[in-house]
Amino acid sequence: MAPLLLSSQDPKTNTNSSISFSSPTSSPPISLTELHPLMAHPDTQCEHDRVQVPPSGPTAMQKARSRFLKVVSYFSGDMKPFGKWMEKQFLLLQLLDWVLRGAAQVMFVNNPLSGLIIFAGLILQNYWWALNGFVGTLFATISALILQQNRGAIAAGLYGYNGILVGLLMAVFSNKGDWYWWLLLPNVFMSMMCPILSSALASINSRWDLPVFTLPFNILVCLHMVATGHYNHHFPQVLIQPRSELPNITWSEIDLPKLFMSVPVGIGQVYGCDNPWTGGIFIISLFISSPITCAHAVLGSAVGMVSGLALAAPFGDIYFGLWGYNCVLACIAIGGMFYALTWQVHLLAITCAFFCAYLGSAIANIMSNFGLPACTWPFCLSALTFLLITTETKKIFKLPLAKVTYPEKNLGFFWKLKKQEKAERAEKERKETEEKKKSIEDEILKNEKEQLRLELARMEEGKRTNEASDDPLTQDPEPEAEQHVDEDETRQNNLTEAAYV
Amino acid sequence: MAPLLLSSQDPKTNTNSSISFSSPTSSPPISLTELHPLMAHPDTQCEHDRVQVPPSGPTAMQKARSRFLKVVSYFSGDMKPFGKWMEKQFLLLQLLDWVLRGAAQVMFVNNPLSGLIIFAGLILQNYWWALNGFVGTLFATISALILQQNRGAIAAGLYGYNGILVGLLMAVFSNKGDWYWWLLLPNVFMSMMCPILSSALASINSRWDLPVFTLPFNILVCLHMVATGHYNHHFPQVLIQPRSELPNITWSEIDLPKLFMSVPVGIGQVYGCDNPWTGGIFIISLFISSPITCAHAVLGSAVGMVSGLALAAPFGDIYFGLWGYNCVLACIAIGGMFYALTWQVHLLAITCAFFCAYLGSAIANIMSNFGLPACTWPFCLSALTFLLITTETKKIFKLPLAKVTYPEKNLGFFWKLKKQEKAERAEKERKETEEKKKSIEDEILKNEKEQLRLELARMEEGKRTNEASDDPLTQDPEPEAEQHVDEDETRQNNLTEAAYV
Amino acid sequence: MAPLLLSSQDPKTNTNSSISFSSPTSSPPISLTELHPLMAHPDTQCEHDRVQVPPSGPTAMQKARSRFLKVVSYFSGDMKPFGKWMEKQFLLLQLLDWVLRGAAQVMFVNNPLSGLIIFAGLILQNYWWALNGFVGTLFATISALILQQNRGAIAAGLYGYNGILVGLLMAVFSNKGDWYWWLLLPNVFMSMMCPILSSALASINSRWDLPVFTLPFNILVCLHMVATGHYNHHFPQVLIQPRSELPNITWSEIDLPKLFMSVPVGIGQVYGCDNPWTGGIFIISLFISSPITCAHAVLGSAVGMVSGLALAAPFGDIYFGLWGYNCVLACIAIGGMFYALTWQVHLLAITCAFFCAYLGSAIANIMSNFGLPACTWPFCLSALTFLLITTETKKIFKLPLAKVTYPEKNLGFFWKLKKQEKAERAEKERKETEEKKKSIEDEILKNEKEQLRLELARMEEGKRTNEASDDPLTQDPEPEAEQHVDEDETRQNNLTEAAYV
Repeated sequence: MAPLLLSSQDPKTNTNSSISFSSPTSSPPISLTELHPLMAHPDTQCEHDRVQVPPSGPTAMQKARSRFLKVVSYFSGDMKPFGKWMEKQFLLLQLLDWVLRGAAQVMFVNNPLSGLIIFAGLILQNYWWALNGFVGTLFATISALILQQNRGAIAAGLYGYNGILVGLLMAVFSNKGDWYWWLLLPNVFMSMMCPILSSALASINSRWDLPVFTLPFNILVCLHMVATGHYNHHFPQVLIQPRSELPNITWSEIDLPKLFMSVPVGIGQVYGCDNPWTGGIFIISLFISSPITCAHAVLGSAVGMVSGLALAAPFGDIYFGLWGYNCVLACIAIGGMFYALTWQVHLLAITCAFFCAYLGSAIANIMSNFGLPACTWPFCLSALTFLLITTETKKIFKLPLAKVTYPEKNLGFFWKLKKQEKAERAEKERKETEEKKKSIEDEILKNEKEQLRLELARMEEGKRTNEASDDPLTQDPEPEAEQHVDEDETRQNNLTEAAYV
Repeated sequence: MAPLLLSSQDPKTNTNSSISFSSPTSSPPISLTELHPLMAHPDTQCEHDRVQVPPSGPTAMQKARSRFLKVVSYFSGDMKPFGKWMEKQFLLLQLLDWVLRGAAQVMFVNNPLSGLIIFAGLILQNYWWALNGFVGTLFATISALILQQNRGAIAAGLYGYNGILVGLLMAVFSNKGDWYWWLLLPNVFMSMMCPILSSALASINSRWDLPVFTLPFNILVCLHMVATGHYNHHFPQVLIQPRSELPNITWSEIDLPKLFMSVPVGIGQVYGCDNPWTGGIFIISLFISSPITCAHAVLGSAVGMVSGLALAAPFGDIYFGLWGYNCVLACIAIGGMFYALTWQVHLLAITCAFFCAYLGSAIANIMSNFGLPACTWPFCLSALTFLLITTETKKIFKLPLAKVTYPEKNLGFFWKLKKQEKAERAEKERKETEEKKKSIEDEILKNEKEQLRLELARMEEGKRTNEASDDPLTQDPEPEAEQHVDEDETRQNNLTEAAYV
Repeated sequence: MAPLLLSSQDPKTNTNSSISFSSPTSSPPISLTELHPLMAHPDTQCEHDRVQVPPSGPTAMQKARSRFLKVVSYFSGDMKPFGKWMEKQFLLLQLLDWVLRGAAQVMFVNNPLSGLIIFAGLILQNYWWALNGFVGTLFATISALILQQNRGAIAAGLYGYNGILVGLLMAVFSNKGDWYWWLLLPNVFMSMMCPILSSALASINSRWDLPVFTLPFNILVCLHMVATGHYNHHFPQVLIQPRSELPNITWSEIDLPKLFMSVPVGIGQVYGCDNPWTGGIFIISLFISSPITCAHAVLGSAVGMVSGLALAAPFGDIYFGLWGYNCVLACIAIGGMFYALTWQVHLLAITCAFFCAYLGSAIANIMSNFGLPACTWPFCLSALTFLLITTETKKIFKLPLAKVTYPEKNLGFFWKLKKQEKAERAEKERKETEEKKKSIEDEILKNEKEQLRLELARMEEGKRTNEASDDPLTQDPEPEAEQHVDEDETRQNNLTEAAYV
């Protein structure tokens, strides 16, 4: 819990202590069952109410706990109250909020605090890269404002996350080393192209209610790298060449600590960082916003590592996290972000991570022919594929794109929808049974009435027969009346039969 | 005829005899005009009726023939009665039916008997490949069941055909040789990914009412091959390299028998088989289900061979059937499968085959840069292109995807539609002419009535003038009354007219 | 002005003189402000009217000018009157019109005169290439006729422009040199495939209301080149290889005249021509139809050149116009052709040109791995991307595809739409204010009535009180009546307040 509190106070200066807590070499301390309710606001409130109702017990501790939960709820999820408060601030401060949210949106997290922590991680990794990332996010957001894109999407950081990746990766793959200031020129240009590509791709993907993911980043960074290439005077890129001989893999030489470390490194590689501490910080930033996202990120990275071993990848690549970062993103996207998290979806997310690892290897091999890295193409393609699936089961529920927030809230939406559906079905059934009951009751009532009428008729008949003895002419109509009564009786029988069917 | 009967009795054991019949070096014995009506069930029945009506003539032979036709109708086409009977059987038997249909669906044939014959051909080629193909089909079908895909599509083998190709081609291109059992692992994984990709691609293609063809297979096999590559410890692939010098082509060295043999080999290469006997078996399996399909398969393979010669391909590639298999599939798809077969469509199918051959060469050259074979990309892309054409002629009729069965039945559907349209048009015309006639008759009747009325009026007028001389006071109201009467009369006429319309 | 008049009389024989006028090394003589109204027919007429009204002044010169404007209007824009006149001519002449329009449609110009001038430029460049271009256009158009495509689109040359590019570029990249007659075979085949690909791609792109641009050409030429490749006996292609070492760039060696010349050369490279005179002729042909198009073409070429310098491209490539032609097309497409030209769109067009230059370098580098040129892929992809943008500003208005003609007319359409919208809004406002006025007047009227009524009531009251003194029973209703009056008064006050708010 400590890192959560610490980082909410001053995440930038306390990163080291929080890292030491969730050391990336050990498995991260995710206590889903405990923290799960923190994220979904209605649940928090419920617990809060429940806590206050019983008068006896250690109330002091409970009160502290409930207060703590309330405080946490302000910093977790998408920090909606903060976003609303921000709307009234002046533009420069708003822009900072959007930039921070943009930085976190790479991992589908709409949380400025997470963004701040992520920037801290980037600074830990490399100042120059962090600067480029910041410039990228900033100019991508500004460009979106100039192009008059949807203000809500800008405020959620949805126009910034491609910018940060463009900025970072252009710095990472530049062959001129750090602090080559000219690089900021193409960086700004490419960042400002992000919203254009986002908008254009959204026009296509929206036909299938799909997000654009990091496709604009992939396109723009590959564009920049292949347009200049390794042999360029102004903006040379690092040399990437296809594998042309059997890699030297001896299983006895495997370095287990490094292998375990590859899990946080894989998460760090989402932002192009190979520092395990940075990866650890990223894990924390995910955990703050959404433990489900955090869990799937770690799971995805692990799946990537295993896939690398299965496909006989060079150990160096695995240690370097190159097998992990795509799986991280794919696993987050499928596992609760765009699908409502059920066990089936969880399995689907793991399958997607494996598929993504396979695809990652394939795309890396193809791209290396052009001197290009795989970027996050594997993640984009695999996640899009898995989001396009149609199935006849209701356990795999794809959220409408407009309703996607974060896994915990998505789940709430899904449960509400299910409850609503159930209620509607129950209501329908109740109505049907009621109607049935009513019709039965009506039948009974009818029958009673009919019987009364019949008795009355008989009584009258009796009277009439008495009278008839005086008047023999009225004997003819009698059998007719009787026949009438018979008919009534049979009709009545039919009705009662129908009522009990 | 012989192979049809033989194979319908026991196709597996008689493959050899049937192959010897339709030897692939000679042109296959396709008698379209004779066999054509066998396939379309309504036609069969019509002939059946027609046969029974005339009492005289060689009835014994005719009866035998009609009985033979009836028997054949059970094994041709999509074997619907068999499929319906299967629905009541237990799941494992059903699964076998689906797997067999899946094996045949590669060639757009929905027929378990054809599937059985195709497996026979595969066994003739290579046991290990056949096993991999079977495993692939089986797991692809099982995966579709797990993912709760449409049961009708599964039963038609539409989730199996990518699986068999994935299984086969992964075995074919493995550099570890036969009986490398570890290969079954990625085989099973990739086969199980087939329904996911099929479902995802169908979500996209269905917007244009297009099938997914073998795109999932293409994607998955290329994925596997390029993810591991030639230089891999676990799953190395055969080395494929781009051409870097002028091939040695001397036209005097051309081997004509081999060139002719390339036609069945090209059909065999659809399943990655280079054995001409296997190709011959495949031709038979096609012939059983649909002679039109069979004819277009042979035609496509021939077009591919000619294109190879025209584009100066190395003779080895042509002999090996590499120029044929894509054209085979493209020619089948366009020639009667997804378009209703007319002469225009037939020409379009041949054009498509030529285009596909061109595209095949292009894609093979590009893919070789990545150590990949062309797979059936050329077929997919060319067929999809030709299915996307829109034209203002009615002779090129694209069937709605839901109505596609097999060329003969498709034709029946097209003819029915045309007849219906014709009938509607005729009905419309009939009504129009009738209305015209009626209105003319009405006009004549009206005129006659009018003339009678006028004469009557004149006569009355004459009378009245005589009476009027006696009573001058009644002269004023008279014309009014007359007018009134006239009005009544006309109204009456109108009413009677209206009544007879 | 001279070249306009000359070329309208006999453009073919006067090309040399007109070239000498608009020498490509000097900046082209575009006087937008002066010539702008020539193109938009309504404007021309307006000016015409304005000119005729004043009776005084040098009328002889004005008359001559107006006559000249009228003559020019027949040859500028899309030459609609000529097209209508052509419809009555016999097919061969019509076909020639379509071919000429097709030749010009590469630059989005629907003008047979421009087409004629372009062919003149091609002949100046190379007879053999011009022949191949003509054959390509002709067969593409014929193929569209055979496939029964939309007659209006054929008549606008929309099925020919891919044909001319296919024909030209297949000749340009053939390694067999000029007058290799066999080349006409694939040329005719590929040209005839153009309408098929156009139709298929239009089926896809029409979902987003996008044109197909030169995608069919790109696909088919790449198809032909990579299918045969450099190492082919029948149709070898020129050898294109990826860059594998740092190019030798010394900024002191830059040749400024050549650099300036690269602007018209870049326009010429749209048709694969490196002759600056040919480029100059093309500029003239654009100017005849639409000065806006012409201006954006020159601008695009200049942007391409600058981008080449910025990305450290070898000077040879820049001089050769390889950095210009895609930007030319992209800048024309965005700058007024598919968007209505505003300042925002003008800036967008320049941005698109820069993006296109970047993309051009990237695609050229990738394609060189397969021995392919970049063709016009960069233009297609960048223009499609920029046409897919959605924004919330009204200043960037994408024309519906069916309404696209040429920039000047598009602007007219946009202005009409805006005026219409304004008029509607004004009408609405007028109505609203009228209604307000009316309600106010009604209020006043009501109030006056009310006051009258009140006075009347008071008078009656006075009467009644007099009477009441006689009858004490009527005292009760009095306060009530008074109260009623009070209520009326307050209501009235409220209403008058409301009316003046």
